[in-house]
Amino acid sequence: MEPVFSFDVRIDRPAPGGLVRHLHGQLRGAILDGRLAAGTQLPSSRRAAEHLGIGRNTVVAAYDLLVAEGYVRSHAGARAVIADVTTRRGLPRTPGAGRDPRINPLWTTPLLQPESPRALPARCFRLGVPDHRLFPHALWRQLAARALRQWSKTPFGYPPSAGLPELRAAIAAHVAFARAVACAPEDIVVTSGAQQAFDLLARILVVPGQTCVAIENPGYPPLRAPFHAAGARLVPVPVDDEGLCVDALPHDTRIVCVTPSHQSPTGVALSMRRRAALLEFARTHDAVIVEDDYDGEFRFGGRPLDALQTLDRDARVFYVGTFSKSLFPALRKGFVVAPAWARDAVVAAKHCADAHSDETAQMTLAAFIRDGHLARHVRRLRPVYAARRDALLAGLVEELGEWLEPIPSEAGLHLAARLRDPTDAPRVVDAMRRHAPGAQPVADYAFADVPPALVFGYGVIDAEAIGPALAAMRRALRRRGGKA
Amino acid sequence: MEPVFSFDVRIDRPAPGGLVRHLHGQLRGAILDGRLAAGTQLPSSRRAAEHLGIGRNTVVAAYDLLVAEGYVRSHAGARAVIADVTTRRGLPRTPGAGRDPRINPLWTTPLLQPESPRALPARCFRLGVPDHRLFPHALWRQLAARALRQWSKTPFGYPPSAGLPELRAAIAAHVAFARAVACAPEDIVVTSGAQQAFDLLARILVVPGQTCVAIENPGYPPLRAPFHAAGARLVPVPVDDEGLCVDALPHDTRIVCVTPSHQSPTGVALSMRRRAALLEFARTHDAVIVEDDYDGEFRFGGRPLDALQTLDRDARVFYVGTFSKSLFPALRKGFVVAPAWARDAVVAAKHCADAHSDETAQMTLAAFIRDGHLARHVRRLRPVYAARRDALLAGLVEELGEWLEPIPSEAGLHLAARLRDPTDAPRVVDAMRRHAPGAQPVADYAFADVPPALVFGYGVIDAEAIGPALAAMRRALRRRGGKA
Repeated sequence: MEPVFSFDVRIDRPAPGGLVRHLHGQLRGAILDGRLAAGTQLPSSRRAAEHLGIGRNTVVAAYDLLVAEGYVRSHAGARAVIADVTTRRGLPRTPGAGRDPRINPLWTTPLLQPESPRALPARCFRLGVPDHRLFPHALWRQLAARALRQWSKTPFGYPPSAGLPELRAAIAAHVAFARAVACAPEDIVVTSGAQQAFDLLARILVVPGQTCVAIENPGYPPLRAPFHAAGARLVPVPVDDEGLCVDALPHDTRIVCVTPSHQSPTGVALSMRRRAALLEFARTHDAVIVEDDYDGEFRFGGRPLDALQTLDRDARVFYVGTFSKSLFPALRKGFVVAPAWARDAVVAAKHCADAHSDETAQMTLAAFIRDGHLARHVRRLRPVYAARRDALLAGLVEELGEWLEPIPSEAGLHLAARLRDPTDAPRVVDAMRRHAPGAQPVADYAFADVPPALVFGYGVIDAEAIGPALAAMRRALRRRGGKA
Repeated sequence: MEPVFSFDVRIDRPAPGGLVRHLHGQLRGAILDGRLAAGTQLPSSRRAAEHLGIGRNTVVAAYDLLVAEGYVRSHAGARAVIADVTTRRGLPRTPGAGRDPRINPLWTTPLLQPESPRALPARCFRLGVPDHRLFPHALWRQLAARALRQWSKTPFGYPPSAGLPELRAAIAAHVAFARAVACAPEDIVVTSGAQQAFDLLARILVVPGQTCVAIENPGYPPLRAPFHAAGARLVPVPVDDEGLCVDALPHDTRIVCVTPSHQSPTGVALSMRRRAALLEFARTHDAVIVEDDYDGEFRFGGRPLDALQTLDRDARVFYVGTFSKSLFPALRKGFVVAPAWARDAVVAAKHCADAHSDETAQMTLAAFIRDGHLARHVRRLRPVYAARRDALLAGLVEELGEWLEPIPSEAGLHLAARLRDPTDAPRVVDAMRRHAPGAQPVADYAFADVPPALVFGYGVIDAEAIGPALAAMRRALRRRGGKA
């Protein structure tokens, strides 16, 4: 028997997205979690088809998808081999390094390897980064200088672990106003970005080897690391046009991680009935909810749906916010609004993790929010991002409508589009990589099998550059012929 | 039987410091780790003495010590009760909060509760904080403004988890020059203070429930939290005039945490032969060493002993540095020099914990170090702190020589002095609290029984204020009569 099947590919369950997607998802999962090592040869499509009792075309299509996504390398005349995913994901360049027996083996699992930063042009479709040209740098410098002057007059000390009182007050007022999140300054714990909020919550809420944590599939990959590191069982839960499929939550779920305002990466909003169902699930199953509201400030439709935190009557929601999208990622400031029963534990974890966040950046941010600059900044940027989003939507429909169907979305800094025909994936992904740098296959966000789709960010691209890029994608797809 | 003895006080082992200290240490340990809850009545000294088969005076002296340290409250005519240590240490004010069953019970253990900040006068004997009046604020503001201007011209992004290359290079050059630590920029991981370095190392090196971690006793309390949180077995190892007693390390120790330059809090330097013995222990027992060099920049004697990292030929030392003492705590910047075999895991843990540190503060710090300001700042401050240290030494000898004996020390921002007669402890601690605010009993740093001593910081007190404060202590001690 050839090696690839030693990891037990099964095609025995009904495959809603078709056999291609199913086989692709199983292989991809095995590569990502290390069961299929780099350099392993895939069996020929003929042998694989025989072994699995499926059509050879199905195997070829699944392999093509893996090649297009970079998980498999294929050379003319040679058998396809598993690509060096470890290197691609930033694992040690020195073979064997990081696998020293003195390191807790947890930290060598693929889920905990940082992605290597991708080299991308300044203006591109990358996700999750706002436009530095639109930021009020001079104002920020002024506030930073003022904070430093003020701070220079007071004795040095160790600021409180939960955050500076003035920043907690400013954040509480801001989220109450902007997102109707019900909270007092005492409910806020300032963190080093949303990532630290996830890490602190994972550390206090997970009992290693026991706690079942539901994550969106597809979903934000960096969220998985802290829960995995804390010893959680991660369970992927599908996402459809109404957001997280609450019905699919396992009964023993204790923590549900969700992006209700703007699902990461599909962009859908969690529908009102799903919100109610999710809160009901939490109540009846004694679960808690981690609500990640990472870019909900940028809304382009009508009135937004209430935050889960706002709807929660049972102190079950941890609302996590960040200033990485509304201001800038390098600021490294986020926060969690924690229910009273968990607040001291969050602070204890923050104290253990890094004692406190840097004081003068907290002072600067507090002044920026308190003086109304954050609200003004978001208001000023909304039409700019709206124009880019409109250009993107128009381009997707006009240039790429034959292959892609945009997924409705009313907020944020990115937009996803699903493939009309999953077997187009290799060609479409290839054209995307050539002509829309920064955009990603939604498969990059998958923890398990997901329907093929692409996601385009518009945080750093000019509106007028969007149409031409998508037109170039269209031409590339046309050049290479019609359907495969 | 009265309740206090239900937690098993034993006096069966030889007690080097005498029975008083032994009984005191056992009771204190039981209070700190929660076996003796707040409000519990202590048995009368008579009953306790009978039960333990020791003299009543011994019990009275141990109780007095606990009262002086605040662990026990004693009211005239009533039996002494265990004080509300949990409240004192910052545990929830609302009874029962923080003990919700949804919180991993780990996070409600006393070791993980942040200390409440103490209200202290600006100029006092507090430890671990440098003098804000001596910091070049205008220069720092200039460099910060320059960093912000430079940064405003580059697209936003997520800086590397290991730290900005320019800061890693600056730190590598600085520690190579200042501490003869052998490292390249790639060996450096920038952290949010030394605390995050301890947390990352604990997370990657500890296997929960297995790894035995040796900590100095007395030693820096905040170090314990991350190792405890990671599931380590913490073993206190005594410290004498040559520093950590390497002979006392348990054979199954996997990680040794040590402050060789300036033991925290006794101030002794790890002797050259102990350094050799510790490295030999690590080699023969396959252990690693966490070298915490928190304030070694400030040296007042001759040539310092080599860092363990410098002596290490076997890649077993993690050198942890911080800018909290040499610059200021609120900057929240530290670093770890990691052996090559562990570097990727440290970066993976940093990536999981908070993705990266804030970019502009890293740029500012890099410029400050690279342009030679850090070296100049330390050089400029050394004589200032030396004068304070001289005043402290002189005052301890001249004013308090009857009760205290300074512990020799050549570096850092604090100095310890041991009690000539342990039974003086309650009176001396009481006089210290009244007249030398900020100073602490070394017992505050104890994880198990330690010889009674006091520790005085001189980071924020003027040299001329030191003598008068110690003279006031002397007068208070005289007023209250001679020996108890």
